[in-house]
Amino acid sequence: STSLDLDEFPHTRYNPLKDEWVLVSPHRMKRPWKGQVEASKNPNSLRFDPTNPLCPNVTRPNGQTNPDYKETFVFDNDFPALFEYSEPTEEPKSSNDPIGDDLFKVQAAKGSCKVMCFHPYSDLTLSTMKQNDIVNVIKKWIEMYKDLSTKYNWVQIFENKGEIMGCSNPHPHCQVWASNFIPNEINREGKNQFEFYKKHGKVMLVEYLNRELASKERIVVQNDSWVVLVPYWAVWPYETILLPKRHVTRIDLLNEKEIELLAEIMKKLLIKYDNLFKCTFPYTMGFHFAPCGKYLDEPQEHWQFYASYLPPLLRSASVKKFMVGYELLAQPQRDLTPEKAAAQLRELSDSVHYLIQSD
Amino acid sequence: STSLDLDEFPHTRYNPLKDEWVLVSPHRMKRPWKGQVEASKNPNSLRFDPTNPLCPNVTRPNGQTNPDYKETFVFDNDFPALFEYSEPTEEPKSSNDPIGDDLFKVQAAKGSCKVMCFHPYSDLTLSTMKQNDIVNVIKKWIEMYKDLSTKYNWVQIFENKGEIMGCSNPHPHCQVWASNFIPNEINREGKNQFEFYKKHGKVMLVEYLNRELASKERIVVQNDSWVVLVPYWAVWPYETILLPKRHVTRIDLLNEKEIELLAEIMKKLLIKYDNLFKCTFPYTMGFHFAPCGKYLDEPQEHWQFYASYLPPLLRSASVKKFMVGYELLAQPQRDLTPEKAAAQLRELSDSVHYLIQSD
Ligand SMILES: O=P(O)(O)O[C@H]1O[C@H](CO)[C@@H](O)[C@H](O)[C@H]1O
Ligand SMILES: O=P(O)(O)O[C@H]1O[C@H](CO)[C@@H](O)[C@H](O)[C@H]1O
Repeated sequence: STSLDLDEFPHTRYNPLKDEWVLVSPHRMKRPWKGQVEASKNPNSLRFDPTNPLCPNVTRPNGQTNPDYKETFVFDNDFPALFEYSEPTEEPKSSNDPIGDDLFKVQAAKGSCKVMCFHPYSDLTLSTMKQNDIVNVIKKWIEMYKDLSTKYNWVQIFENKGEIMGCSNPHPHCQVWASNFIPNEINREGKNQFEFYKKHGKVMLVEYLNRELASKERIVVQNDSWVVLVPYWAVWPYETILLPKRHVTRIDLLNEKEIELLAEIMKKLLIKYDNLFKCTFPYTMGFHFAPCGKYLDEPQEHWQFYASYLPPLLRSASVKKFMVGYELLAQPQRDLTPEKAAAQLRELSDSVHYLIQSD
Repeated sequence: STSLDLDEFPHTRYNPLKDEWVLVSPHRMKRPWKGQVEASKNPNSLRFDPTNPLCPNVTRPNGQTNPDYKETFVFDNDFPALFEYSEPTEEPKSSNDPIGDDLFKVQAAKGSCKVMCFHPYSDLTLSTMKQNDIVNVIKKWIEMYKDLSTKYNWVQIFENKGEIMGCSNPHPHCQVWASNFIPNEINREGKNQFEFYKKHGKVMLVEYLNRELASKERIVVQNDSWVVLVPYWAVWPYETILLPKRHVTRIDLLNEKEIELLAEIMKKLLIKYDNLFKCTFPYTMGFHFAPCGKYLDEPQEHWQFYASYLPPLLRSASVKKFMVGYELLAQPQRDLTPEKAAAQLRELSDSVHYLIQSD
């Protein structure tokens, strides 16, 4: 606790999930912007594009024709970053070079990369889809997870939305990359949540949510099962975290009501995001929870399921926050405080989308 | 050591400096690109712009007029992320909430942010400046470092080059942010280098360079004092690291010959970078070395001075690598292997710039 005025003076805040700090420089919101401005994109207005490999009935470059799908549609990524292969059989040889072994470590990476279309229409996004269509998406995620989790140790579900987020196709879709290895961020978060659990006998993110619910300062929107808030240690200007009100260690453990209400709160958050700068809001989102495969047999109580939304925009639909220089080499830095970001998001409508007439 | 074909099969490589892994998916270079294309920028051709606050003799928005500088010019950032202020005096009170204390950690952040113009001409870059002008830049860095290092615990020197890297002014310049705190990345690298030193009794990056010099596979360019190479664990497509041939723990310990040859090798690398896609190559660069301030009295032998170049371009002047979805949530991923990137860079001229007629 500090009596420092966090709205005025530069300070660093600690992220207990990642064990790292963010520099907050609130007074810097006043600085003028003369740098890059992103082309302002109109939302995609084409419902069906016969040349788009994600649309129903279209033949993809590999010769396969998509079905006339009506809800979600899953297929194998045609250019997967991970796939299955058999390693050359090798005699384990003892190395005479312990230093070299520590400097040139390499591991075979095996896995599976899938693409999932959210809906047959190219002109929709999760913010403009019907709640029930989002329920279908969540159920498909869980089905895919259940399938992949027996074979792989981690399943990363993620959506890159918007060209500015490297998304190369405007059709609403996400990706699922499953791997034999535990990625850096999952490893880090597992370790830090485990240490916290050992030290305090409590689940880090459950305790954290309790305190946020009491303070209300950083809450954006909530329903019976879920809360969206701007974390105290947020790095991106309008970064949010979506947490269950119950302790849930993995996505397959959500119950029917939680699935229904997850669809509801995702839609509410995404309507707010689109309304913020009156644009189809770009972001990366994805889920973190306890790892699977061989880790299903290990203690997982220290983990809490959550979704992370990482949007790059800072001041308008065309001005983003650059994570460059100081951020890449030293430490993330933000100008807007998490409290101000939460207050702005809280005030926006979560039911009337700026593009859609209310009924 | 593995007999896996690293040019063909996905694998992960370990970064011993950061204690994290990168996913390499070499076969993925074949995938088509339909995503965002950056506007191709012509290099800045205006030598003097009376409205540019970085040019000589121009009056900046705060009312100060720049001198008629002939070499480098340093001034205080008009919108600093860090500055000096006095904290409210506070009775240290014992907290009754150890969990809350672990979840909401905050520290006052104090420091100084400076801007340094490399040259009076707006139409130059480090790749097109004379070697002797680069020597002036390096000497000014050392002078600034010496000054700031008595008061602050870390001095981050960095250059954001290009609009795509969030650079808001085309005039050749860099920034220097000094802080009372040790940023995440410095903390991490210090810890990992220290552990290595304790375990092996050798300096990590000195050992690493010896092995790279023996293998030659990832070397880009070298001279009597310096080597540029693509690290085994590089994340960005054409990322490089610039290492001294001698063990040097801090920037102020470089000798005259090393300063001269650092200017030479920086220019060579940057000419290669510009020649790669025939554009003024965007990047973030900066130096890492042992921390200062109160850390000057602690052992620093495990540290090795180096410069890091982090360029975003992937396939051409207009297609960059996006660090999004999987990268942000799970782990960095690359397609091009570090060995192929090094071979490409190695082959480009380091003396004839694509824009400049050779004499
Ligand atoms: O200080 P500048 O050049 O205006 O700003 C640039 O560099 C800073 C330090 O890396 C970043 O925080 C900003 O996001 C970026 O736009
Ligand atoms: O797979 P996509 O959508 O073609 O590619 C996008 O997402 C990937 C996973 O985050 C990134 O590695 C790519 O840089 C990005 O362009």
